[in-house]
Amino acid sequence: MTATATKIRPLGDRVVVKPIQKEEVTKSGIVLPDTAKEKPQRGQVVAVGPGRLTDDGKRLPMEVKVGDEVLFAKYAGTELKIDDEEYLILSEKDILAVLSE
Amino acid sequence: MTATATKIRPLGDRVVVKPIQKEEVTKSGIVLPDTAKEKPQRGQVVAVGPGRLTDDGKRLPMEVKVGDEVLFAKYAGTELKIDDEEYLILSEKDILAVLSE
Amino acid sequence: MTATATKIRPLGDRVVVKPIQKEEVTKSGIVLPDTAKEKPQRGQVVAVGPGRLTDDGKRLPMEVKVGDEVLFAKYAGTELKIDDEEYLILSEKDILAVLSE
Amino acid sequence: MTATATKIRPLGDRVVVKPIQKEEVTKSGIVLPDTAKEKPQRGQVVAVGPGRLTDDGKRLPMEVKVGDEVLFAKYAGTELKIDDEEYLILSEKDILAVLSE
Amino acid sequence: MTATATKIRPLGDRVVVKPIQKEEVTKSGIVLPDTAKEKPQRGQVVAVGPGRLTDDGKRLPMEVKVGDEVLFAKYAGTELKIDDEEYLILSEKDILAVLSE
Amino acid sequence: MTATATKIRPLGDRVVVKPIQKEEVTKSGIVLPDTAKEKPQRGQVVAVGPGRLTDDGKRLPMEVKVGDEVLFAKYAGTELKIDDEEYLILSEKDILAVLSE
Amino acid sequence: MTATATKIRPLGDRVVVKPIQKEEVTKSGIVLPDTAKEKPQRGQVVAVGPGRLTDDGKRLPMEVKVGDEVLFAKYAGTELKIDDEEYLILSEKDILAVLSE
Repeated sequence: MTATATKIRPLGDRVVVKPIQKEEVTKSGIVLPDTAKEKPQRGQVVAVGPGRLTDDGKRLPMEVKVGDEVLFAKYAGTELKIDDEEYLILSEKDILAVLSE
Repeated sequence: MTATATKIRPLGDRVVVKPIQKEEVTKSGIVLPDTAKEKPQRGQVVAVGPGRLTDDGKRLPMEVKVGDEVLFAKYAGTELKIDDEEYLILSEKDILAVLSE
Repeated sequence: MTATATKIRPLGDRVVVKPIQKEEVTKSGIVLPDTAKEKPQRGQVVAVGPGRLTDDGKRLPMEVKVGDEVLFAKYAGTELKIDDEEYLILSEKDILAVLSE
Repeated sequence: MTATATKIRPLGDRVVVKPIQKEEVTKSGIVLPDTAKEKPQRGQVVAVGPGRLTDDGKRLPMEVKVGDEVLFAKYAGTELKIDDEEYLILSEKDILAVLSE
Repeated sequence: MTATATKIRPLGDRVVVKPIQKEEVTKSGIVLPDTAKEKPQRGQVVAVGPGRLTDDGKRLPMEVKVGDEVLFAKYAGTELKIDDEEYLILSEKDILAVLSE
Repeated sequence: MTATATKIRPLGDRVVVKPIQKEEVTKSGIVLPDTAKEKPQRGQVVAVGPGRLTDDGKRLPMEVKVGDEVLFAKYAGTELKIDDEEYLILSEKDILAVLSE
Repeated sequence: MTATATKIRPLGDRVVVKPIQKEEVTKSGIVLPDTAKEKPQRGQVVAVGPGRLTDDGKRLPMEVKVGDEVLFAKYAGTELKIDDEEYLILSEKDILAVLSE
């Protein structure tokens, strides 16, 4: 996570994720299947929105936090580039799981 | 933001955004990826609606305010031109994140 | 607005709008982009429904009123002709913004 | 409205409408545009259902009543013939407006 | 209605209907349009479900009862044959109206 | 129903059904139409889930019970084989009716 | 279930399942039909999310637990590989039934 990434404040239940490339060494030792070669499905959370606002005006708490290593649905989210690094903005519902050490 | 832009009062959870072109210098230093060349994904909020009206007759508060620099989903919104400048009207749910300095 | 237009009582959250042609002088000075040439996106409200009825039997208040100059989504609504003048019937959710002087 | 038409009791929020042909003289003086030639968009209400039943078991009141001249969405509803006259059964949400004298 | 038909207990808001052929004499004198030739749109209710169960665990009351002559949406429902007679199982929301004498 | 079938505990509002072939003698005497030849639409319930869980955390009661002979929508459900016998797992909303003796 | 699998914490109502190959001996003796050859429909639950969060901020309890042998809809879920073993992440609503001994 770079200093720049902290400049992004996602809205609602959105999360900014820095994708982790397959060849990188990861703390959980998880390797993605071949079908995921084109687009990574794993990343680190660098920014988290305040949560989805329900019709009652309540914010639903987020399940992920900054620093979490997550798996997310392929093709989910919107790509963006900050200081030459690529990020994704995802809805939390596109995040499948958190990987713990 | 021009004086004219303030003449627009968006309905519901809509937001009027002035797109920021890629070559402009921006306060957050964020550069959009090549795939975003045709249509900008970044802009400045120039007008904000009163919020979505729920079935209980309550207004849900808006997360963005006039002056915010925002990222929004590509192809979202409706283009319009005011005094020869181009704007977009978006639903707030098409706004992904606010960029802070 | 003609006297005839007042004969239409829209149901629910519907609104009757008299489209404003691009070449007309408008009070807000707003000009629509070229892509809007075929179908106007701007108009004046001539009749307003009582509001959408929720499942609780409540009417949700309308945000627009007769006389408002509005922007509406292209291709929205149903065209009709009253005394040789063309109108549109729109759902209020297809109205993007009100233009104020 | 014929005596036979009163034999139809629509369910829920449905309405039976007798379409009015373009060449007929109508009380409101409204003429439909050319694009409506194939299928009429105007008619007179001859029967009205009890209203939609909500999940709370409440009936939502109908906005139209027998005798109303209405505009309805083109292609909406189901055609039926009673004593050699053609009618349409529509959901009230396909009725756009009531035309008053 | 045959004795066999009473053996069917529809679930939820479903209704078993015995289609009435066009050439039969019907008590309401209603004749269906030519476009309905292939598949009848009229029938007699022979069995009625207990009503749709809402999320609150309440049963919504049915609007039709055994013996009612009804109009239903073309192509709606599932055909079945009991003792060589054809029936349809429909959801009540596919029934448009009840025909009374 | 075999002893093995009781080993399956369906989730939510799902039901396990043993399809009944057309040529078998059934207690209700119902024969399915020719269009149902490829895939049976009738079966006997061998296992029933606890019911759908609503957003309030309530279980909605099931309308069918083990032993019921049911009609279900063609093409509904997922096939599975237990001890060389074929079964279907269906959502209760795909069950149209219960057949009683 | 390997030690690695416990490193995955599914979000919401998601479940991590280790597919069971057809040729393996299983405790329930259930064999899947031929149409399931390409993709297994049976597996063992190795990790369970906290449950779906409703709009009221409540967690709905999960019906499956770690160790359960389950049947799941073909083509459901997202594949992933952990320490060279294949897993699926599914929403609980894609799980059809639990198989008990």
